[in-house]
Amino acid sequence: MKLRIFVTLKPGVLDPQGKAIGKALQGLGFQGVNDVRQGKLIELDVADDTTDAAIDEMCRTLLANTVIENYRVERA
Amino acid sequence: MKLRIFVTLKPGVLDPQGKAIGKALQGLGFQGVNDVRQGKLIELDVADDTTDAAIDEMCRTLLANTVIENYRVERA
Repeated sequence: MKLRIFVTLKPGVLDPQGKAIGKALQGLGFQGVNDVRQGKLIELDVADDTTDAAIDEMCRTLLANTVIENYRVERA
Repeated sequence: MKLRIFVTLKPGVLDPQGKAIGKALQGLGFQGVNDVRQGKLIELDVADDTTDAAIDEMCRTLLANTVIENYRVERA
């Protein structure tokens, strides 16, 4: 079973990496870039009998820092 | 206009970061994790009149290294 896990910074958490990308895009001459946020995309290939609870546990214990990050799981 | 850009390593390109995540999951006792690949998720907020060509150009010049990475643009 293929999973895609999207880990994004919570709103309000500073994202210097996103800011750097935004400034670089402006520096390259791209107009109209208002905001950039960078997150992570983790693609997992897990056994078909993996439970939702186990997936959630993986996200909470390792893949996302839930103090500052949100995560979303998508089954591919 | 909100865009989500998914940057993933091309198949065949080694992904040590993904391997490390996989080993860490195993170390934590999660069974059945066959493969892990880590990519990037970049959320852009751009002006509504930004053309597809400009978005593509941003990806090719800055956001993705097209030698080793694929990218996919999704309009939110």
